[in-house]
Amino acid sequence: MSTLITGIAELTTNTGDGPLRDAAVVLDDARFAWIGPAGAAPAADEQIDLDGRAALPGWVDSHTHLVFAGDRTAEFEARMAGRPYRAGGIATTVAATRAATDDELSVNLARHIAEARRQGTTCLETKTGYGLSVADELRSARLAAAAADEVTFLGAHLVPPGANADEYVDLVCGDMLDAVAPHVRWADVFCETGAFDRDQSERVLRAARERGLGLRVHGNQLGEGPGVELAVRHGAASVDHCTYLTDADIEALAASDTVATVLPACDLSTRQSLAPARALLDAGATVALATNANPGSSYTTSMAFCVATAVLQMGLSVAEAVYAATAGGARALRRDDVGVVRVGARADLQVLDAPSVTHLAYRPGVPLTYAVWRLGRPVVVPVFG
Amino acid sequence: MSTLITGIAELTTNTGDGPLRDAAVVLDDARFAWIGPAGAAPAADEQIDLDGRAALPGWVDSHTHLVFAGDRTAEFEARMAGRPYRAGGIATTVAATRAATDDELSVNLARHIAEARRQGTTCLETKTGYGLSVADELRSARLAAAAADEVTFLGAHLVPPGANADEYVDLVCGDMLDAVAPHVRWADVFCETGAFDRDQSERVLRAARERGLGLRVHGNQLGEGPGVELAVRHGAASVDHCTYLTDADIEALAASDTVATVLPACDLSTRQSLAPARALLDAGATVALATNANPGSSYTTSMAFCVATAVLQMGLSVAEAVYAATAGGARALRRDDVGVVRVGARADLQVLDAPSVTHLAYRPGVPLTYAVWRLGRPVVVPVFG
Ligand SMILES: [Zn+2]
Ligand SMILES: [Zn+2]
Repeated sequence: MSTLITGIAELTTNTGDGPLRDAAVVLDDARFAWIGPAGAAPAADEQIDLDGRAALPGWVDSHTHLVFAGDRTAEFEARMAGRPYRAGGIATTVAATRAATDDELSVNLARHIAEARRQGTTCLETKTGYGLSVADELRSARLAAAAADEVTFLGAHLVPPGANADEYVDLVCGDMLDAVAPHVRWADVFCETGAFDRDQSERVLRAARERGLGLRVHGNQLGEGPGVELAVRHGAASVDHCTYLTDADIEALAASDTVATVLPACDLSTRQSLAPARALLDAGATVALATNANPGSSYTTSMAFCVATAVLQMGLSVAEAVYAATAGGARALRRDDVGVVRVGARADLQVLDAPSVTHLAYRPGVPLTYAVWRLGRPVVVPVFG
Repeated sequence: MSTLITGIAELTTNTGDGPLRDAAVVLDDARFAWIGPAGAAPAADEQIDLDGRAALPGWVDSHTHLVFAGDRTAEFEARMAGRPYRAGGIATTVAATRAATDDELSVNLARHIAEARRQGTTCLETKTGYGLSVADELRSARLAAAAADEVTFLGAHLVPPGANADEYVDLVCGDMLDAVAPHVRWADVFCETGAFDRDQSERVLRAARERGLGLRVHGNQLGEGPGVELAVRHGAASVDHCTYLTDADIEALAASDTVATVLPACDLSTRQSLAPARALLDAGATVALATNANPGSSYTTSMAFCVATAVLQMGLSVAEAVYAATAGGARALRRDDVGVVRVGARADLQVLDAPSVTHLAYRPGVPLTYAVWRLGRPVVVPVFG
């Protein structure tokens, strides 16, 4: 089954050139089969005319935490009102997640992924990290693997209440990794004051590497720290947050293959400053934009909000922000089959109800998603007539 | 025709108390006929169950400029990329608006109003100000009056290219106001360096008052200036932008009936700082949130984006921001029949696909509009089943 999509006023391909004008694409099953000028398009089983709208690769959201249960609305509300709030933060979600049934977790995860897809996200990474026991992390990994494009093991999210940190790291690096590794592609560690220090983080990264997992790091969220340096030295695919960076961190990222993944919705939702994405790009680092969707620090699935924030408040051009939210995310996941419109790549395409991607920042908050295809199948069906 | 809406987990009424829990409302034709606990609800012709969602008054967007033609995407893109851009700003839109047919202007206006309504805006003010001649301002006023809830005459938006400022003010205060006044409720002036100075602005306000029009002022957008002082002294219903305020301005607003209307999407889209809404509230001023939807400085119709920004970045609590975007807007338009859920008020209601209004800021960018009624009629129909 092939679909010819014509009437694309502006097609962002991320293949090195600028966008194509008056373009068409052919989706054949799950792949792009043809891309070029509308006038030269081949025939296909069905044809759809976008009537002058912009199309671009589906968003690649390379950082979410969506295997969770429980509600932290009151905690957010208190934080925004400047009221103290006695709650356990991540530990609250850990308790609720452990108490939930498999079905409850799967339904919640599927609901959030569907919400993300309706907004144009066609490739989504998610993490464990609200289990923090061998059985609960294994369960989270299995449920995530059944629903998400990429799964990351984040047993090293937090030292569980009452546990000894070094003993917990032993568990993560031993039985927990043994159990979870077959179900995930990535391992991650929250390297931050209050979570895991440099030595503990390094142990986790080494143990994960020994199991053949790719590496990711949560670092430099709450202050300067060793996260970036560790990530680069261990060849992590990505270091995420990057809110507080030294000049040395920026230089190290620029000289490495490690992507700097910035999470502006998280920075705003925790009333931090925004990560220095402009300085990272100027230095030559690769930047990815992601939502960090989770019920505590960043409860949004909106990549469009992240793009608008990057442009309006972080000094990125529209083209830079869109690239970071598509090809940048793909780089952070070491994938070349998503975040790009080229023949042979995954037929993940989003269409805006606007003539250019500029409208994503020009019209902040306006829902512009008009149509979405993922793996060649329609997720959001355009309304014609 | 009456409609009973039940299953409202949280009903924001803006009637002085906090939200009602487990509430119901009855819409009877265009008005609220009953409000109370779900268990005590009367019968109605039809019944809708919201299944635990939050409901609140429709947004009151008290500041837009939607009678326009033309495209300024390239200007926005250049501004965001830090590139110089040789264009006339407002004058570009004036030229395109003058050149457009009535039909083109009406279709564009209706399209933007429909977009706003789909996002929960049920009462919308819009302005003239891209005509700047007697005939073109009159045309804009007539078209606006046929489509919007409130219309403001903004002949004093800009001195048209080539005109003498004082002579143009003479025209605004004379023939233009004579022609337009029968079609509008409000008059406004852009009191700012580069637009109209204190004396010119005061002449416009006096002339408008003589025609029986209510007054509004664009002031303090680009720097400190006389806008707020003028607005308060002349009893304007609202002074809009308020990005740069002195302590004296804040005190004057707090001691007056003039609403301070802040426009965060405009502040962000022009890379200004955000208006000091927190300080205004702390001083006791009434604050309204509005979009300033226009193709130059703020091309969004999303009140939810403004609310999220107010909470995440301007220090407002969720309750304060929601109030400012509903009852605050109503105060800025000197109306008590909108922005409120009480018996007899206009049956303008929005429902979120979330259990509380907190999610508007907790989940920035996620389209949460689930259902909208305006004047008792469904604009966005809830999906059941
Ligand atoms: Zn995270
Ligand atoms: Zn304005």
